[in-house]
Amino acid sequence: MKTRVFVTLKPSVFDPQGKTIVDALGSMGYAGVRDVRQGKYFELDVDAGTADEARSLVSEVADKLLANPVIESYRVEVDGEGNDV
Amino acid sequence: MKTRVFVTLKPSVFDPQGKTIVDALGSMGYAGVRDVRQGKYFELDVDAGTADEARSLVSEVADKLLANPVIESYRVEVDGEGNDV
Repeated sequence: MKTRVFVTLKPSVFDPQGKTIVDALGSMGYAGVRDVRQGKYFELDVDAGTADEARSLVSEVADKLLANPVIESYRVEVDGEGNDV
Repeated sequence: MKTRVFVTLKPSVFDPQGKTIVDALGSMGYAGVRDVRQGKYFELDVDAGTADEARSLVSEVADKLLANPVIESYRVEVDGEGNDV
């Protein structure tokens, strides 16, 4: 079953990568880009009978390996579920 | 206007980071995870009058700075558009 995990820095955490991208875009003439936050994106293909099982497995994996819960939060999407974008 | 860019390696490009994650998960007991592909995720806040303008600006930025079109592909989502997930 196809799942996706989006890992982002918590809003209170400063994002130097994003700041660097905004500065680079400014010097390239893209002043219309006000803010950038960079995160990580994972596509996981998992063995699971139901979407709920897949979500539970992938959430556990995200907590333990993909995200650092101290400074990052994550969101899980599972194919075949009503996903909130 | 809030937009999101997902950058992923093209399917034909080997993803050593993803392979490492699958191996690590296997050794942690998560054999149910068959495949992982890692990508990048950006949230951009842009000045744009319409969703179409925002999409066009962000696609240009993704082409020039966020993605390497030789080995990566990207997908853009704009708030307030009918987004295909």
